[in-house]
Amino acid sequence: MDGGTGRNELRIDRERLWSTLEASARIGPGRAGGLRRLALDDADREMRDLFVSWCREAGLTVTVDGVGNICARRAGREPDLPPVAIGSHLDTQVAGGRYDGILGVLSGLEVLRRLDDLGIETRRPIELIDWSNEEGARFTPPMLASGAFAGVHALDWVLARKDDDGKSFGQELQRIGYAGDAPVGGRELDSYFELHIEQGPILEAEGVPLGIVTGGFATRGFNIDIRGENAHSGPTPMAKRRNALVGAGYLITAVNEIGWRFAESEGKATAARLEIWPNKAGIISDWAQLTCDFRHPDPKATAEMEAQLRAAIPEAAEKARVEIEIVEDWTFGAERFDPDCIALVRESAAELGVPTRDILSQAGHDAYHLSRICPTALLFTPCRDGITHNEAEHIELDYTAPGVDVLLNAVLKRADR
Amino acid sequence: MDGGTGRNELRIDRERLWSTLEASARIGPGRAGGLRRLALDDADREMRDLFVSWCREAGLTVTVDGVGNICARRAGREPDLPPVAIGSHLDTQVAGGRYDGILGVLSGLEVLRRLDDLGIETRRPIELIDWSNEEGARFTPPMLASGAFAGVHALDWVLARKDDDGKSFGQELQRIGYAGDAPVGGRELDSYFELHIEQGPILEAEGVPLGIVTGGFATRGFNIDIRGENAHSGPTPMAKRRNALVGAGYLITAVNEIGWRFAESEGKATAARLEIWPNKAGIISDWAQLTCDFRHPDPKATAEMEAQLRAAIPEAAEKARVEIEIVEDWTFGAERFDPDCIALVRESAAELGVPTRDILSQAGHDAYHLSRICPTALLFTPCRDGITHNEAEHIELDYTAPGVDVLLNAVLKRADR
Repeated sequence: MDGGTGRNELRIDRERLWSTLEASARIGPGRAGGLRRLALDDADREMRDLFVSWCREAGLTVTVDGVGNICARRAGREPDLPPVAIGSHLDTQVAGGRYDGILGVLSGLEVLRRLDDLGIETRRPIELIDWSNEEGARFTPPMLASGAFAGVHALDWVLARKDDDGKSFGQELQRIGYAGDAPVGGRELDSYFELHIEQGPILEAEGVPLGIVTGGFATRGFNIDIRGENAHSGPTPMAKRRNALVGAGYLITAVNEIGWRFAESEGKATAARLEIWPNKAGIISDWAQLTCDFRHPDPKATAEMEAQLRAAIPEAAEKARVEIEIVEDWTFGAERFDPDCIALVRESAAELGVPTRDILSQAGHDAYHLSRICPTALLFTPCRDGITHNEAEHIELDYTAPGVDVLLNAVLKRADR
Repeated sequence: MDGGTGRNELRIDRERLWSTLEASARIGPGRAGGLRRLALDDADREMRDLFVSWCREAGLTVTVDGVGNICARRAGREPDLPPVAIGSHLDTQVAGGRYDGILGVLSGLEVLRRLDDLGIETRRPIELIDWSNEEGARFTPPMLASGAFAGVHALDWVLARKDDDGKSFGQELQRIGYAGDAPVGGRELDSYFELHIEQGPILEAEGVPLGIVTGGFATRGFNIDIRGENAHSGPTPMAKRRNALVGAGYLITAVNEIGWRFAESEGKATAARLEIWPNKAGIISDWAQLTCDFRHPDPKATAEMEAQLRAAIPEAAEKARVEIEIVEDWTFGAERFDPDCIALVRESAAELGVPTRDILSQAGHDAYHLSRICPTALLFTPCRDGITHNEAEHIELDYTAPGVDVLLNAVLKRADR
């Protein structure tokens, strides 16, 4: 349905969007101009409190579910219809940027505020959702709470995840007052829209303000245990050593070299995180755990990267005389987004005169999990030099706002369907 | 001087020595039967308190210096003469054994108790010293407080060393009540004797109860910084990555391979410790620091190992596109022990009928620092399978006591000189 001339060409209040982004950037500021707002820390609580107050001021009904996802609902004319959802995340990396998932949540807020400005009522309700712990910087894996919502992770398992200090997700949720009583998922959504910075250099380089994500890089992640034996770092002969850190060293270089073998076709392999115990001068460490992942636009290539990892494991184990075993693994990014939702986005962009290009997502997003339970679209806006998960992350309002305008119009169309 | 028949063939009270070792083994017990008694932690305080009470019961005068070294002095007939010192350390590794440095301190206590039993007065005073933080497991470098005593490390620098939680050596010394007011070093010692488990398999394999250490493996240690750049672990192309953890991986494997090149001549290279920041899933780490060391009986070979490390650094840096720089380095083990002290040890062993062999030390010991300021001897007793810095560390009283008997007689000879 069309509300008359101009209803398909609505535009957001750019300055209001920018001022909410700036307000967010004052909560949990990092040392170098970015943000440090880890999931369920004090800064996350402060940001959640501000976000909830903004939602309430906008007349939205706020509920919090059992994994801390905050849902702000705008009523529709037919309240029993499944809602259209918009979402992303307000947490950041340990040295993260100001925009990342934050832009997506605050763009959603701007969409709802703009509908209010214009006195527009929609047929379906619209829900704006802040997903807990998307980054995975404090509690692994990433996209933890949207995974719980989509039924990918069991609730108990999520609540038991621990940070590096041994604090559990459930305890910390209680501590910050965001262990809500709403059920986690288990309800129908009409559709889900997420807007995110590209986290890559393509849109900026091509001068295109909007990327329509048609799918993701197929990603395989692994936690790999390396088991050796404690011994004095001095007298133990080379042939008797079983140093877990050395096993990790061979594995890290193997992961990196797999990445290079697939680099020409845009493959990537990352040795992201290494825990070691006891990791002290004077003693050979008996345990390490490496977190690594492999990404490629072609799922067959990702499978080949995984096969090369599995071949490298016994080689590294033999070189360091340790035992190496994959203890956890995960998959994302092979999801494909919904043709109808994508068509609505294309239509709105055309009506607004916003240039677009199709693009693949290289990073994980909450939208991946949501795409399992409802029709989903993911939109990208440019970020400078593709720099992200870095405090230097930067966007410009002028090349961001057109994408948010498209989000506004596409969501409105979908909510009126 | 000789106190008469038998004065050169004194023997310790074996059961008393063993019971003090067992009392020590109840303070800070590890999970697997060993000990976890890190320098200046609560267990270290409890052990220090017990040690001080034993010393006071034995009539010794206890003083504590500004870096927490505990000195228990037995008077001599000529109190102004420089004392003979016996020492070692009561701290352990994070998953350490029951004997390591502990045997050395408690053997010294047994020597002084035995002299009392026998009513023997010596010409020179004898001091028994527990050196703080020998292990370096909590505060690097190892042998920290004996280094301060010997003038190798400045007092302020020692007090400012931080553990992994950011607590300083000085703060923790205050907290446990062992920031004493005695000056740190700066006084003359006549000589220094240290008895230690071998931390290697040779004595046990050969059935020899006492090793006379004639020198050490020449050891070079390094802290090496690796600097990369934060970026998202997903979209960043391989060619743009500057992953500090990957740089560390290449460096670890290079260190290990240097060790193998010198393994036939007893060389060893250890990648002991790696710190990484931010070390999180989803982000490429921009900083890591590797602690590694190289040991060889021939100082020229150690120098060659160092040269190979220095050659490997630019290669690893280029492979990972990071910057790698040595930020701290240390040297020990090229010290040689004192011919006169060694001669006294040999003489006492011969008088007691205790078989000995000359041996090189592969690990660092407080005796290295002491050898810079006074004539020093280091004695080794066997340990099962050479296992050490491991909770399975094990000794037998029967093959340990002969070495302590030698210590008793050698110290007595020296104190009467």
